[in-house]
Amino acid sequence: MINVGVIGAKGRMGSQVCAAVEDDDELELVAEIDVDEGSLGDLVTDEVQVAVDFTHADAAFHNIEWCIKNGIHVVVGTSGLSPESLKDIAALTAKCEGNVLVAPNFAIGAVLAMRFAEMAAQWMPDAEVIEMHHNNKVDSPSGTAMNTAAAIARGRRQSVPAARPEKLKENLPGARGADLDNVKIHSVRLPGLVAHQEVMFGGPGQVLSIRHDSTDRKSFMPGVVLAIKKIADRPGLTVGLEHYLGI
Amino acid sequence: MINVGVIGAKGRMGSQVCAAVEDDDELELVAEIDVDEGSLGDLVTDEVQVAVDFTHADAAFHNIEWCIKNGIHVVVGTSGLSPESLKDIAALTAKCEGNVLVAPNFAIGAVLAMRFAEMAAQWMPDAEVIEMHHNNKVDSPSGTAMNTAAAIARGRRQSVPAARPEKLKENLPGARGADLDNVKIHSVRLPGLVAHQEVMFGGPGQVLSIRHDSTDRKSFMPGVVLAIKKIADRPGLTVGLEHYLGI
Amino acid sequence: MINVGVIGAKGRMGSQVCAAVEDDDELELVAEIDVDEGSLGDLVTDEVQVAVDFTHADAAFHNIEWCIKNGIHVVVGTSGLSPESLKDIAALTAKCEGNVLVAPNFAIGAVLAMRFAEMAAQWMPDAEVIEMHHNNKVDSPSGTAMNTAAAIARGRRQSVPAARPEKLKENLPGARGADLDNVKIHSVRLPGLVAHQEVMFGGPGQVLSIRHDSTDRKSFMPGVVLAIKKIADRPGLTVGLEHYLGI
Amino acid sequence: MINVGVIGAKGRMGSQVCAAVEDDDELELVAEIDVDEGSLGDLVTDEVQVAVDFTHADAAFHNIEWCIKNGIHVVVGTSGLSPESLKDIAALTAKCEGNVLVAPNFAIGAVLAMRFAEMAAQWMPDAEVIEMHHNNKVDSPSGTAMNTAAAIARGRRQSVPAARPEKLKENLPGARGADLDNVKIHSVRLPGLVAHQEVMFGGPGQVLSIRHDSTDRKSFMPGVVLAIKKIADRPGLTVGLEHYLGI
Repeated sequence: MINVGVIGAKGRMGSQVCAAVEDDDELELVAEIDVDEGSLGDLVTDEVQVAVDFTHADAAFHNIEWCIKNGIHVVVGTSGLSPESLKDIAALTAKCEGNVLVAPNFAIGAVLAMRFAEMAAQWMPDAEVIEMHHNNKVDSPSGTAMNTAAAIARGRRQSVPAARPEKLKENLPGARGADLDNVKIHSVRLPGLVAHQEVMFGGPGQVLSIRHDSTDRKSFMPGVVLAIKKIADRPGLTVGLEHYLGI
Repeated sequence: MINVGVIGAKGRMGSQVCAAVEDDDELELVAEIDVDEGSLGDLVTDEVQVAVDFTHADAAFHNIEWCIKNGIHVVVGTSGLSPESLKDIAALTAKCEGNVLVAPNFAIGAVLAMRFAEMAAQWMPDAEVIEMHHNNKVDSPSGTAMNTAAAIARGRRQSVPAARPEKLKENLPGARGADLDNVKIHSVRLPGLVAHQEVMFGGPGQVLSIRHDSTDRKSFMPGVVLAIKKIADRPGLTVGLEHYLGI
Repeated sequence: MINVGVIGAKGRMGSQVCAAVEDDDELELVAEIDVDEGSLGDLVTDEVQVAVDFTHADAAFHNIEWCIKNGIHVVVGTSGLSPESLKDIAALTAKCEGNVLVAPNFAIGAVLAMRFAEMAAQWMPDAEVIEMHHNNKVDSPSGTAMNTAAAIARGRRQSVPAARPEKLKENLPGARGADLDNVKIHSVRLPGLVAHQEVMFGGPGQVLSIRHDSTDRKSFMPGVVLAIKKIADRPGLTVGLEHYLGI
Repeated sequence: MINVGVIGAKGRMGSQVCAAVEDDDELELVAEIDVDEGSLGDLVTDEVQVAVDFTHADAAFHNIEWCIKNGIHVVVGTSGLSPESLKDIAALTAKCEGNVLVAPNFAIGAVLAMRFAEMAAQWMPDAEVIEMHHNNKVDSPSGTAMNTAAAIARGRRQSVPAARPEKLKENLPGARGADLDNVKIHSVRLPGLVAHQEVMFGGPGQVLSIRHDSTDRKSFMPGVVLAIKKIADRPGLTVGLEHYLGI
C-alpha cells in the first residue's frame, strides 16, 4: 500500500486524482491539501510517500522543493514550470531522496501516440498533423499538435529517406495549413468535437495513421495512478510520462 | 439494347468507357471515334443512339452540336465547357431531339457525397472540408473541395440555425485552413494517398462526417453506364449527374 | 412565441428539454409536468400550444390522446409505442386538431446519416455497418445499427446494380459480423468510446462512408426545438424526424 | 555500391524488386534469376553480395541454403517457411558467413503498425481489430489481422491493467466479430477497398487508433531496399523487418 497526498485537492484535476487514488486497491489517500485546507506539513505528519501536485506553476515549484527535501516523491501535472525551475529541481533531487515526475500530459494514449509519431517519422518522414477540437478552443494549432510536429521533426532527423520537398501552390491562402519545422498542421474547429488528433505518414503505396480521441478528463487518471506506483523506482527528475512506459 | 458510340475512344477515359460499355449486357459498342480514327458521320451510319464524349472543351462543343442536330443523345465528361457554350447547347436541345448530360464528375459516390453535404448543411451549418491527395497534386485546394464548399454554402443559406461565427486566433498562419464562402478547407498532401475527401458537420454533442475515397479511375464507369441508360428519358440539357440520381 | 409544456419535466431528457426551450427566443416554457408535479389539465390552463412527452410508453399513449383531444400538438420522444397505438393516434388526429410527431431519434445528424444511407444504397448497394459503443453497452448490434441495416435494405431494393453476393469463408466464426437482410453489421465495444456508427458503401474504385459520432445527450435538443417550431404545420401523425427535414 | 541479385526476377514481386534496386543509387542489379533464366551459380559469378528471394517456400529453402554456404546474404520475402526450416537456416548461418532476413511483410507502415499495437497493448489492453479488404478477398480474417491480434495478446500479457472481461450479448450472431486470444477481429469486405486495417485501443475517456492503408504493392519496396542495405550488419537469421527498424 502506498500512502498518497494530493496538493490542490479541491481543484478540477485534484479532486479527480483523489477519487482515482481512493478507487485503487494499492493506494491509500492519506492527505488532501488545498489553499484553505491543511498545509504541506501534513504530508509528513500523515506519512505520505508520494504527493501529487496539480496546482499552478508558481505554487508548484515551492511544493516540489519542499517534498524533495522531506524525502517525498512528487508526481507533477502542473504545466508552465520554467526550464530554470526544472534545472533547480533536478539539482535538488541529486542531493535528496525524493523523486520527481513532471508530465505535460497524463493521458497514456496521447503519450503513446506522440512517441509512436516520433518513431514512425524515422522511417516514414512525410507526415502531417490534423487536430480537431470543439469550436470554443480559440487558439490554433493546439499545444499538443505543436509538440507532435516537434516530435516528428526530431524523428525525421534520424530518418534514412529524406522527407519530400513541398511543391506548394495554394490557390486559396492557408489551404496547406500551418508549418512548424516543415511539418504541416491543420486545425479543425467544430461544435460536437471534443479533443482529437490524427497524424498521417505517407510512403509509396501506403499510409500509416495514428489517432488519439479524448472525450473526458478522466483519461488522465490511469496515467497518474501508474506514475504514483512507479515513481519510487525512478531516481531524480523525469520529464514526460513516456519514460515510465518504457518506450 | 442501346447502341453506343465513343468519341475520344483511344484516350485515357475513352478507352475505359469502351471497355465498360462492352462489359454491359444492355449496351452495345457500335462506334469508336478518335482523332485519327473514323468521323462523326460514323455515329449516324452505325445507328448510334447515345454518344459519349471524353475529349477536350474545344472539340466537345462541336461534337455535341453535331450529335444534337442528328438526334443522338450525348453523355459529356469533358470539363471546361464555358457557360456560353452550355447556354447554346441548351437552346439547341430545345429545337432538336438529342438530349445532353454534362457532368464534371461521374463517380457516383463523389456525387452523392457532395449532394449529401449540401443537404446536411441546411440543418448542421457548421462544416469544414478536409481533402487529401497524393503529393504530386500541386494545386490546393482541389477543385472538388472548392465545389463542395460552394455546395455547403448553398445549403447553409437555407439553414434555420445560423453557422457559428469564427473566433479565429492562428498562432501559426494557415492553421485554420483556407476559407471559401466561410467554409474552411484543409488540404493534405502525402505520398500513398490517392484522392480522398471528408466533410465534417458539427452540432452540440454530435458530428456527422461524409467521406469519399477514390482509388481508381474505374470509379467513373458505373456513372457513365447509368447515364447512357437514362439519357433518353431526360429531355434537354442536364448539368450534373446528381439529377439522374433523383436526389 | 410558442407556448411549450413538458411532460416528464424532471426526467433525464425532460429536464434537458426544459432548459433548451428556455434558451430559445421563440419558445416560452409555460408548463412543467411530472408524476408528482402538476397535471395534464395545466396544459390547457397555461395555454400550451405544443407539449413535449419524454415519459414511457404506457403513460405516453394516454398523454398523447389527451393532448390531441384538447387541440394541443405533441412532440413525442418516448420509445416503445406499439403499432396499434400509433394507428389509434393517427385515427384520432384525423378527427381532432392536435398534430403528433413520434420520433425514435432527435439527433439531427443521426437522422440525416440514416436517410443518406438509404439513398446511397440505391446506387451503391454493397454496404456494411460498423457501430462502436462504450463497453458498458451489453447488447449488440445497437438498435440504430439494425434500423440502419433495414434502411440500407430498403434502398437496395430500388437499386439498379444488384448487391454483390457474399463469397463467405470465415476461418474464425463471426469474422464477417452479423447479417441482417444481407447487410453485415460489426459491433465494437471499448471503454473510451461513446456512441459512433459508420456505414461504408463500396463500388469499383471508390468508397463512400457516412459516419455519426454522438458524444452527449444534448445532441437531441436542436431536433426537439425544431420539431416544436414545425409541428403546427404538419397535420396528423408523423413518424420520424426525417419528414420534418424535407429529405 | 552493393551488388544485388534477384531470385524469381520475373515474378510479380521479383520484377518490382528489380526495378526498385535499379532505381536506388547505392544498389546495383547484377543478376536476375528465374526458373528459365540463369542459375544460382550466377550469384557467385556476378559477385552478388545480397540476394533477394521472392519465390515459394519449396524453392526458397534450397536457395537460402545455397546462398549462406556461398557467403551471400539473403533477404527473403517468401512466405510459408516452416519452423523447422527456419531452425535449420539459423544453424547454418552460425557456421557460415551469409546473413538471412525472413520477413512476412516488407511494408514499413504495416510493420510499424503491428509493433505499435503490441506496445500499446501493454498499457491499454482493451483492443479490437477492424480489417477491411476488397470483396475478392475470400478468406476472413486476414492473416495480418490474426498476426496483429497475436501481437496484442503478447503485449497484453505484460500489461499492468487487466483487459476488461467481455459482457457478451449478441442479439444477432457474429455481431461482436471473431475472437482470437480474447482479441475481437472484424472483417469488412467491399468493392473499392484495397487493404486496410485499424486497431483501436480504449481506456477511460480516450481511444488510441493505429491504422494502415495499403493501396499498391510498391509499398513493399522501401522495406526491401532498406533490408538489402542493412543485412551485412545483422549476423545470423533475423525474422521480421521490425528488428531492422530498431523498435
